[in-house]
Amino acid sequence: MPPKVLQDNLGVDLVIKYKIPSSGIYDVTSNFQKLIRTLAEIHLETEVRAADDSSLFIFVKAGNNEAFTDVIYRSRIRDWLHGVRQIQPTREAVSTLTETPLSESERLRMIHAMITSQRMDGGANITPKHGEWKNVEAIFPLHNHERNKKWLADFTKKTFLTPEDLDHVRDAVGEKSYFQFLTFPAAFGASIWLLLGNFSPIYMIGVGMWSVVFIEYWKRQEIELSVRWGVKNVGTLEARRREFRPEKVHRDPITGEDMALFPAKERFRRQLLQVPLAIASAIALGIVICTCYSIEVFISEIYSGPLKSLLVFTPTVLLTVCVPIVSGFLTKYAEQLNNYENYETQSAHDKAMVSKVFVINFITSYLAMFLTSFVYIPFASVLVPYLDVFSLTVRPFAENEKQTRAPPMSNFSINPQRLPNQMFFFAVTSQIISLATETIVPILTRKGQDKVEALKASALKRSSGTVPSIAASDHAEEKDFLARVREEADLPEYDVTADLREMSIQFGYLVLFSVVWPLTPVAYFVNNWFELRADTFKLTIESRRPVPQRADSIGPWLDSLEFLAWLGSITSAALVHMFSNGGLGPDGRPNKIHFGYLMLSVFFSEHIFLIFRNVVRYAIHKLDSGNMRKERSERFMVRRKFLEDAGLGDAVKPLTSPGDSALKTMNTRGSGISNITRQSLEEDARYDSLRDTDDMYRFWNRQRGWEESETVGMRLIEMIESNAQRKTK
Amino acid sequence: MPPKVLQDNLGVDLVIKYKIPSSGIYDVTSNFQKLIRTLAEIHLETEVRAADDSSLFIFVKAGNNEAFTDVIYRSRIRDWLHGVRQIQPTREAVSTLTETPLSESERLRMIHAMITSQRMDGGANITPKHGEWKNVEAIFPLHNHERNKKWLADFTKKTFLTPEDLDHVRDAVGEKSYFQFLTFPAAFGASIWLLLGNFSPIYMIGVGMWSVVFIEYWKRQEIELSVRWGVKNVGTLEARRREFRPEKVHRDPITGEDMALFPAKERFRRQLLQVPLAIASAIALGIVICTCYSIEVFISEIYSGPLKSLLVFTPTVLLTVCVPIVSGFLTKYAEQLNNYENYETQSAHDKAMVSKVFVINFITSYLAMFLTSFVYIPFASVLVPYLDVFSLTVRPFAENEKQTRAPPMSNFSINPQRLPNQMFFFAVTSQIISLATETIVPILTRKGQDKVEALKASALKRSSGTVPSIAASDHAEEKDFLARVREEADLPEYDVTADLREMSIQFGYLVLFSVVWPLTPVAYFVNNWFELRADTFKLTIESRRPVPQRADSIGPWLDSLEFLAWLGSITSAALVHMFSNGGLGPDGRPNKIHFGYLMLSVFFSEHIFLIFRNVVRYAIHKLDSGNMRKERSERFMVRRKFLEDAGLGDAVKPLTSPGDSALKTMNTRGSGISNITRQSLEEDARYDSLRDTDDMYRFWNRQRGWEESETVGMRLIEMIESNAQRKTK
Repeated sequence: MPPKVLQDNLGVDLVIKYKIPSSGIYDVTSNFQKLIRTLAEIHLETEVRAADDSSLFIFVKAGNNEAFTDVIYRSRIRDWLHGVRQIQPTREAVSTLTETPLSESERLRMIHAMITSQRMDGGANITPKHGEWKNVEAIFPLHNHERNKKWLADFTKKTFLTPEDLDHVRDAVGEKSYFQFLTFPAAFGASIWLLLGNFSPIYMIGVGMWSVVFIEYWKRQEIELSVRWGVKNVGTLEARRREFRPEKVHRDPITGEDMALFPAKERFRRQLLQVPLAIASAIALGIVICTCYSIEVFISEIYSGPLKSLLVFTPTVLLTVCVPIVSGFLTKYAEQLNNYENYETQSAHDKAMVSKVFVINFITSYLAMFLTSFVYIPFASVLVPYLDVFSLTVRPFAENEKQTRAPPMSNFSINPQRLPNQMFFFAVTSQIISLATETIVPILTRKGQDKVEALKASALKRSSGTVPSIAASDHAEEKDFLARVREEADLPEYDVTADLREMSIQFGYLVLFSVVWPLTPVAYFVNNWFELRADTFKLTIESRRPVPQRADSIGPWLDSLEFLAWLGSITSAALVHMFSNGGLGPDGRPNKIHFGYLMLSVFFSEHIFLIFRNVVRYAIHKLDSGNMRKERSERFMVRRKFLEDAGLGDAVKPLTSPGDSALKTMNTRGSGISNITRQSLEEDARYDSLRDTDDMYRFWNRQRGWEESETVGMRLIEMIESNAQRKTK
Repeated sequence: MPPKVLQDNLGVDLVIKYKIPSSGIYDVTSNFQKLIRTLAEIHLETEVRAADDSSLFIFVKAGNNEAFTDVIYRSRIRDWLHGVRQIQPTREAVSTLTETPLSESERLRMIHAMITSQRMDGGANITPKHGEWKNVEAIFPLHNHERNKKWLADFTKKTFLTPEDLDHVRDAVGEKSYFQFLTFPAAFGASIWLLLGNFSPIYMIGVGMWSVVFIEYWKRQEIELSVRWGVKNVGTLEARRREFRPEKVHRDPITGEDMALFPAKERFRRQLLQVPLAIASAIALGIVICTCYSIEVFISEIYSGPLKSLLVFTPTVLLTVCVPIVSGFLTKYAEQLNNYENYETQSAHDKAMVSKVFVINFITSYLAMFLTSFVYIPFASVLVPYLDVFSLTVRPFAENEKQTRAPPMSNFSINPQRLPNQMFFFAVTSQIISLATETIVPILTRKGQDKVEALKASALKRSSGTVPSIAASDHAEEKDFLARVREEADLPEYDVTADLREMSIQFGYLVLFSVVWPLTPVAYFVNNWFELRADTFKLTIESRRPVPQRADSIGPWLDSLEFLAWLGSITSAALVHMFSNGGLGPDGRPNKIHFGYLMLSVFFSEHIFLIFRNVVRYAIHKLDSGNMRKERSERFMVRRKFLEDAGLGDAVKPLTSPGDSALKTMNTRGSGISNITRQSLEEDARYDSLRDTDDMYRFWNRQRGWEESETVGMRLIEMIESNAQRKTK
């Protein structure tokens, strides 16, 4: 009898949602037939049920048959061949499963791979929403509710994760370790805020050091976890992307495998297009954000006409409307460029995309703060007067021209609260908004949708009572189960990168600007406490269950964090320097800043940061971990095992030096050692020289065996010493 | 018959020079006996000859016996186990040699290892000049003169090196590729000098980019060569240093091998002592150099009394005397600290030492240039007046006080030629001096020594004609050979690091200061043309032949070069900025420099440098090389071979999807497909439910086989479509 866990899902491994388009009956049936037959070809069991008014569910299960065992066995051997798995598989396919039982995530991943991977890799090549399989809407596993419940209860309390959590936790680990790490800047920031206030250099140093330790620790952690989870080197055997277009196919002269190649030079040439893209992004988004920012400054600080309190929100509204449009546009181009770069594997493709998105995110997230810190605060008195070009934005409301004219410079004073207010906005207000958007909005939306559908259904019933509802034909004992499957099928897909992106943006505010307001990490800490719970909830309840993936790194995100931390060492130093006059700052008057000293502060801060980073890196690199030692040992054992199998095991052990007994039996020729005189030796040599005139032969046969060498040597020593004595006399 | 090459050296593999101390006859003979016996224990053949009046030669040869074959076999297996060698050794020791014949350097390295490695590693544990083997003066191979001659003729002409050169070339490769790379800055510098003169920003950019490309290319080259030479991962099986003191011995739970451990934390704590050492070096050398520098400035620019032209050289003399003393002292402490850091392998030990020596070298080499560039040039008019504290150095010579008093600031003007003069000195004068010291001095010294010895010998002959000369007792046909061996034994050891150290210092001048005088790379190019020849000469003729070593990196030197290139992006920018007024510079008056803009130039230069470096790194990383592809394939093949041996070869190939025939035979149960109605299916299910009430069982048996799934699915599609049509009606 299968375990309770499987029973809950009636042993269903994956569900395929198959959409029936409203036209073209012939095409659909033959396509559906092909789907069922293809699944049968790879030895998967199927059950068909109605999903809703326009689609079917095909439930898929891998039987405990030989075919599936063979798939697992081959996959494990492939892992081993590519160094992902160190333990050598046994020689019989059957015993594979009994030796290392299949985990749930391994099972789901394997079945998903069987269905989707290409023919040449031994799969069925069913590609959802693509080509001939465009009717296949989705392939997804069902939630394991019992485990989710247990996990939801545990995860937020646990500090250490057990291996069973891993397929769920994978993405959450980064977030969780970030949350744990946040405790330090939160506590530190709170005390600094109480004792020293804003713009404290000590806070800057503390956060800078913290960011370095966090990143380096995480890098290390990643390697560790990839070893522990057995996903190290997984990148090397990742399936080829379907969209990859090789330039030529090359047969490896050694392994004899066909390798589809795309020259790195050509790709690099295409990657160079990222430079104009980044420039275009900077210009497009820069113009939008700078304009809105300027209008906002103009209205709030120059305009003095009516409706000011209302008009001041127009630029924010403008920003909220324009930025998503522009950045959406840019993201589309980035995607096209990314496709053009033609990566071989999905992870390389994703990585390249992440770095492109980072550029856009960076501008949209931080530009406003940069403008306040490094344009408004130091140069306001110079620049603000020029802002009356924006007077036309309020022309309709202004009563006279005076209301839209900048005051004379002497009268103008900047708003000293702008910077802390902005930081407060990003640390508290926007976090609350996004948390609400993430958690409450989807719930409301779904409730609304449900209601709408219920209304629709009842309306349909009333209008055409004769049409039988598809769900009505469910078997009684399956009703609950199918209802649940329908619900899960309607859930959105879980966006793995969204949480990491959010985290990296937050980290950016922390290292770049939090010196403005040391309570920022406290706010983030509180926010993340909720966020972590919300995300776990989202992953287990609010999203369709993702197909487990193997990945050995969150690589590109780490690169972003690294860049942000470095940049933070520059911006923080500049902010601290500018506000070193008791937190008042340069007050919009650029001549209050000694530019040279400012640059010097930045220079020192950056280089101390880099030196510290190198030290931390070196130290962490040197601390050898148990996991990595274990991996090395295992790798060694693989080869040793091979030798032992070949009856050569003892060749690994060190050479034992022969004892005296061996020495004694070694050379029995020179039996009359004590009788050898130089004379007799030379006679021997002369005798040999008759036999063979070869110089070399003669040289090596003057002293036959070590005993003769020893005797000759002792004679020579005697001679030398007597000479030495004679000399001293 | 052995090949001609071996015949030249009469088949001698290694020569052991054994010194006979002038006292304690008993001790020496027993020690000598033990030596001969130990060599016999590891199955080496020996011949003893007289070396000179106080030492013996023990010629060592490995016989073509089973014992030596076994050693080679075990060593190759060890390489394979640790991933140095990818090709799997054959299963019989005897065929090892026939399959991959032993190269000369491999043979020498192995015999040397047999003699010197520790008992637990299967060696004889003979440690020259150490402990009980303090009489063993040296163990060295003999030069292969024929090959040297050919190589000397070829090497300087060849661009690509053949594998046979490698054991000689190993160290020269770095030098040679540096020389080849120098052609670019030499040509570029010459044209810039002609067209734009000194302090050209274009030159700065060119050299900066060149330095990045050179370093990154070299890094890549190292990996490539280590793969080609089969020394990759060699670090992992390096023998333990004899001086290593483990804190505890730990038995690996997996491999069962004993591992001597020294905790990384403890070592890191000891390494932190480098910080005070570096500070002490900076202060000690800084004081010496700054003082001499100040005195020199004082004498040449303030002092106006008699003997000025002579006195001006005193600080140089002082420097030449003091710096070596102080730096020798510091190096001694650095060595002690390095020993205290207790590294496990020789290469880790050397690497740590190189980085310590780099600090000392850096100060002694570049401090004077830094003083001129960043102290004298900008601040001379402020600082020079204070230099009359040094008046007491010339008090004895001065005729009146006026001669030692600084002129009023308004009259004072700096010497604008000081910076170019100094650069010229380091680029030309000092290079010529060092080249001369390296090549001519040793020749003269040796000639002198020979003459002295000849004189001594003849004097000895005259005084005590009765003492028989040791050499006189040589066998006639061995006379030439032994004379040659005696000569080689007297040669100094080749210092591997000296050439690399010299190169790195030169590279430093180039990237840090050559913007002062763009002809610097031309001068270095010319110098290195000679240097390369001189070094090759030195290696083959002027030094004892080194025992071949395997090393996979010149690691620490590369780190130094990297640091210098980075620093260069800062110093060059500062110099270019300061001299941007037509090359006149700030003329000793600090208010002529806008400090803020200077820092800004430095900031931009450094960050552009870093961005460019990242791009080059990325590009080079992506360019996959043939060698590395080959290595990957070989690694894959090792495992595949194993599978094939186990009769599992086909498991590596992709799963072939079963054809239609398989599909047809797969499920023969549902023979009456067309007759299935929903009714009949449900009856089946109901029947099953009587047999087994398990939900799961019932769910999966509603549709038995893929044919039934297909039929049910088609029914459902029909239903959905008819519903849809009815709705639209």
